Amino acid sequence: MRPSGRAPDEMRAITIETAFTKHAEGSCLISFGDTRVLCTASVERSVPPWMRNKGTGWVTGEYSMLPRSTHTRSSREAARGKQSGRTQEIQRLIGRSLRAVVDMQKLGERQITLDCDVIQADGGTRTASITGAWIALRLAVNKLMEEGAIKEDPITAKIAAISCGIFQGTPVLDLDYDEDSNADADANFVLIEGGQIAEVQATAEGATYDEEGLLRLLRLAQMGCADIFKAQEEATK
Amino acid sequence: MRPSGRAPDEMRAITIETAFTKHAEGSCLISFGDTRVLCTASVERSVPPWMRNKGTGWVTGEYSMLPRSTHTRSSREAARGKQSGRTQEIQRLIGRSLRAVVDMQKLGERQITLDCDVIQADGGTRTASITGAWIALRLAVNKLMEEGAIKEDPITAKIAAISCGIFQGTPVLDLDYDEDSNADADANFVLIEGGQIAEVQATAEGATYDEEGLLRLLRLAQMGCADIFKAQEEATK
Amino acid sequence: MRPSGRAPDEMRAITIETAFTKHAEGSCLISFGDTRVLCTASVERSVPPWMRNKGTGWVTGEYSMLPRSTHTRSSREAARGKQSGRTQEIQRLIGRSLRAVVDMQKLGERQITLDCDVIQADGGTRTASITGAWIALRLAVNKLMEEGAIKEDPITAKIAAISCGIFQGTPVLDLDYDEDSNADADANFVLIEGGQIAEVQATAEGATYDEEGLLRLLRLAQMGCADIFKAQEEATK
Amino acid sequence: MRPSGRAPDEMRAITIETAFTKHAEGSCLISFGDTRVLCTASVERSVPPWMRNKGTGWVTGEYSMLPRSTHTRSSREAARGKQSGRTQEIQRLIGRSLRAVVDMQKLGERQITLDCDVIQADGGTRTASITGAWIALRLAVNKLMEEGAIKEDPITAKIAAISCGIFQGTPVLDLDYDEDSNADADANFVLIEGGQIAEVQATAEGATYDEEGLLRLLRLAQMGCADIFKAQEEATK
Amino acid sequence: MRPSGRAPDEMRAITIETAFTKHAEGSCLISFGDTRVLCTASVERSVPPWMRNKGTGWVTGEYSMLPRSTHTRSSREAARGKQSGRTQEIQRLIGRSLRAVVDMQKLGERQITLDCDVIQADGGTRTASITGAWIALRLAVNKLMEEGAIKEDPITAKIAAISCGIFQGTPVLDLDYDEDSNADADANFVLIEGGQIAEVQATAEGATYDEEGLLRLLRLAQMGCADIFKAQEEATK
Amino acid sequence: MRPSGRAPDEMRAITIETAFTKHAEGSCLISFGDTRVLCTASVERSVPPWMRNKGTGWVTGEYSMLPRSTHTRSSREAARGKQSGRTQEIQRLIGRSLRAVVDMQKLGERQITLDCDVIQADGGTRTASITGAWIALRLAVNKLMEEGAIKEDPITAKIAAISCGIFQGTPVLDLDYDEDSNADADANFVLIEGGQIAEVQATAEGATYDEEGLLRLLRLAQMGCADIFKAQEEATK
Repeated sequence: MRPSGRAPDEMRAITIETAFTKHAEGSCLISFGDTRVLCTASVERSVPPWMRNKGTGWVTGEYSMLPRSTHTRSSREAARGKQSGRTQEIQRLIGRSLRAVVDMQKLGERQITLDCDVIQADGGTRTASITGAWIALRLAVNKLMEEGAIKEDPITAKIAAISCGIFQGTPVLDLDYDEDSNADADANFVLIEGGQIAEVQATAEGATYDEEGLLRLLRLAQMGCADIFKAQEEATK
Repeated sequence: MRPSGRAPDEMRAITIETAFTKHAEGSCLISFGDTRVLCTASVERSVPPWMRNKGTGWVTGEYSMLPRSTHTRSSREAARGKQSGRTQEIQRLIGRSLRAVVDMQKLGERQITLDCDVIQADGGTRTASITGAWIALRLAVNKLMEEGAIKEDPITAKIAAISCGIFQGTPVLDLDYDEDSNADADANFVLIEGGQIAEVQATAEGATYDEEGLLRLLRLAQMGCADIFKAQEEATK
Repeated sequence: MRPSGRAPDEMRAITIETAFTKHAEGSCLISFGDTRVLCTASVERSVPPWMRNKGTGWVTGEYSMLPRSTHTRSSREAARGKQSGRTQEIQRLIGRSLRAVVDMQKLGERQITLDCDVIQADGGTRTASITGAWIALRLAVNKLMEEGAIKEDPITAKIAAISCGIFQGTPVLDLDYDEDSNADADANFVLIEGGQIAEVQATAEGATYDEEGLLRLLRLAQMGCADIFKAQEEATK
Repeated sequence: MRPSGRAPDEMRAITIETAFTKHAEGSCLISFGDTRVLCTASVERSVPPWMRNKGTGWVTGEYSMLPRSTHTRSSREAARGKQSGRTQEIQRLIGRSLRAVVDMQKLGERQITLDCDVIQADGGTRTASITGAWIALRLAVNKLMEEGAIKEDPITAKIAAISCGIFQGTPVLDLDYDEDSNADADANFVLIEGGQIAEVQATAEGATYDEEGLLRLLRLAQMGCADIFKAQEEATK
Repeated sequence: MRPSGRAPDEMRAITIETAFTKHAEGSCLISFGDTRVLCTASVERSVPPWMRNKGTGWVTGEYSMLPRSTHTRSSREAARGKQSGRTQEIQRLIGRSLRAVVDMQKLGERQITLDCDVIQADGGTRTASITGAWIALRLAVNKLMEEGAIKEDPITAKIAAISCGIFQGTPVLDLDYDEDSNADADANFVLIEGGQIAEVQATAEGATYDEEGLLRLLRLAQMGCADIFKAQEEATK
Repeated sequence: MRPSGRAPDEMRAITIETAFTKHAEGSCLISFGDTRVLCTASVERSVPPWMRNKGTGWVTGEYSMLPRSTHTRSSREAARGKQSGRTQEIQRLIGRSLRAVVDMQKLGERQITLDCDVIQADGGTRTASITGAWIALRLAVNKLMEEGAIKEDPITAKIAAISCGIFQGTPVLDLDYDEDSNADADANFVLIEGGQIAEVQATAEGATYDEEGLLRLLRLAQMGCADIFKAQEEATK
């Protein structure tokens, strides 16, 4: 039924290549099937002006798609002179999600920027970004702890994200581009290891859905994230 | 328990003043307590370039807060030279929500722009905007039908939005600013008359929530929207 | 002779609703007939960088038209990414006019920003803005004096503005949109209670005018402002 | 009494060097004392989109100060990425003034852009710009008529501008920078040969002025413009 | 003598991974040591407005560094709202270089955009970009020819680029970051297979150089490019 | 053979009018035939933030073409809201070139900005800018030394620039616009008195060139700069 032949609750293959770039304090190239995102964590001693001299840190995210990561070339946001509303919405989501699992007191007065650059897009780029950003963050914080810059681990839990949707009437897990562009409803879940929800963004496209539909999508997401947490564990141990 | 003394499932007073401005094809000043938003619907014959000559219409939303709608003055986006990520996120949500209840074939090749300008802010400005925008849209479409420009009603249902949140451990309906800035979780629901969901955006702030929490917020939202649909009916009949 | 049936020296009805919004230190919704402008005064402790540590204050103005305040919708300046030349010209005029009646020493090191947002436009929005801004300023300064933040009243006089023009050969007072768009000459006067002139901006449109014409317009403006000063007095006492 | 030793009704020396640049259809370098502005008229066959296919023309102005035309260097507007409110105000004034003496039907469907670039500033740059722009326009139109592109002269009259002000209590003609920065009132007059007024912009700075003051400034301007019209005649014959 | 221990005329290892992304008509990830650039070629049927309906094509380049491709994080150009002068200079060079080896008549009315995105920077990113862009272009043109869209090969020759410099008095080939930031002179050569020069950009940094120095750098570049042409041949056959 | 009738190694007439504007610490209007550039040097006590409190100075360049300096009018960069890639490339070159002959320690903590504004363009505007900028710099530094603000001369040598190219197969010196727009190759040389090279930028246009061609162009440039150094000497003594 699914264009890819996957079962409704079957995710695409996840691969994670850590230390993909050498300058960043933490980095990985994460793939969900053909979706590939380069996530880097950069540690800086300075925090935004409104946070200075409070001894607490900050975590923020940035997101971009390379112009030809998509089927047809998109114009470069730097050339257009501004980031699209979609880009800003996604980078706000990335930052908010990662901050949900960081204790800013323990991080101390430093900022970690998570850059998520989409190398190739095939659906689910924002959820892959959040998932990969956690790995880059984990690696960067490990480095800070090894160097003795941080005493106690500021990361309180794993966090991961996955998209689900209702495709031709059936709830399915981990939408690829073909499904995403034809889904009746599309939901992104950001979940914390242990069963808590950090964020739900569920949108009807054309059709609408009801309470039952929302719950079924949430349960698929919980199944998917269980697998993702294992992959994160493996990649960062 | 609530700063305002309201019961957990008690909304603020809703007032709707239609035809607040004379030039727009539809307009209202909608208030949820001290939150006041001016919503106008403007009908134009031209649609965006990528939609031309297809005989179908488009509905889009714009959102802005007046600089001193808030407790302390915010700088004017026009003066800064760009709209914030928050503004863009909200206006995308307004447009998407309203499009969920419009049949673009029946609308014909015309665009309706829903401008939501916040006169005074006290929490819930985006949900008040969606609710008020539907009224402005309804009035503008009524006008088009009275003029004979449109034969069949393109609006398929009422749509309304409300925010809920977990405040000091209790799920509460229709957050005001005092609650919103201290809530553990904050969710905006866009619901369609008849029980369908158009959009859910639920975010943990500090704490997180679980499936049970999400469901309880959804049920509060369903109660609140039932009242809002009545107010919309009254205002537009 | 006038489209509205008014006598040449007859102004439109003026209504002033003070405290229209609750957050601003001073605010009013001022109407000249169908022209309605929301004016708010915001007091901030910081002054522009080049004025710091001198113990003197600053008064500045900002102006905007809501997209559908006009007959046909105008695009939103924040979306276009810049303010038009007309907007900048008007907000410079508002700030300059109000500064003409404020003693910056007595104001002390604080800035008052006068936001003039046009809710509905029917000619004369800049003059209504100046007139309403004075009221908002008066209310904000009253508040500062009641709180004891300011000892001596920094406002030296009332200031008001009105447009006059030559319409079909006849000098007329307080142009509405129908007149404004067809006038031979159009002049905005900013007058100070007591007979002084703060600013004259008189422009020929199509036809030109001479010294005699300029004087007749000035005298109409003086008559009109006499009434406006009374309305300001009433609104702020 | 005046810093320059001039009599109250004495203008600075005016020099006009026509054909200062070779590419423009009309050009001059105009000086009022140390104020020097390069004015060029560029003829293009295309008019703005909203004027096309109507057979009528358009005249517009642009204005800029070279970064070091002033006492201390100002940052370059192109580098800052936007034109200041002052620049926009002045270029709107230049265009409006010149259009007051052009018959757009006779000009035919072509646009003439008047670029006024201030080489050196010592007060009165906007009025020198208008005065010089008329010369550049006259030369460009002469060229079009010599080439037979235009049959009837579209220029209906000479137009010139001059600033006057109240300096230490005395009305004076043609303010230089020292006077301008200390004047009590400052007025720019755009006058048409024959006694008509195209534009008055009179502003109180610190002090205010009254009807009598306005009239005395207007009469000084009329005296000054009489001399300027002679200089324009001489330069373009 | 060189920080890397390389001989003066020794290049870094070149690796080329073609088809690195699946959507682009041509793509490669090219590495010169630790410098890694993703180059993609995107074919579009539309050309810039000024070239339409002439039957000839266009080749253009864009360049960007990922924020953390460098030792310390650089701010994202899309977030800053403009491309730096350096970025614009480089992308002009990429486009100009590639156009030097394309027959625009044979390409036909289509545009090929070469996006060069630096994944990791260690000196020589602009020369790696040009070299990799040729490969992406070659692959994209091969695809057009296989599809029969183009009859005759529009690519007239191979083109490659390399940087040379004078480091501690010695001319060296293929500068890495450590050398580049301390070189006395720095030159980028764009050479065409067969001995022709497309572009030379040679700059003294601190010290200067003379004719002899320039020639020695050119000869090193010729040696380096001979190897690069082989690598290009291998990668695209 | 050359459109101007000049011999291949013949430069255009150079004229230099120093002190062309009165406010700048140093200024000249430099002409190479019909190419005329106004160069001013502005001394400021502040240096860029990253250089503060180090006791060393900075020299930077800015470049602009007046809209009608060219054959057909170009739009104004300040109106477009950004500087073109070409402009940025040229102003980076001007700054880099002048810094090559200034000892920043001896200059002390001050910035000198060299503004090069093209009044009339006929080819070679960037090289005329560099040549004239040196004169403005020399005059400004002389002034600082006369005032005793600087003890030792920070200027280490003269620097000049000239363009050469291959026109109809022949290497020629000092291209004018007619030659520049039809040259097979075009090279800009920035040379230091005494035989050193500061910068070479050589580009093939259509055709390419080889080592021999590059050398012949360099030798023409050396001849031309010998004359320019004399003109600089004369103008500044």
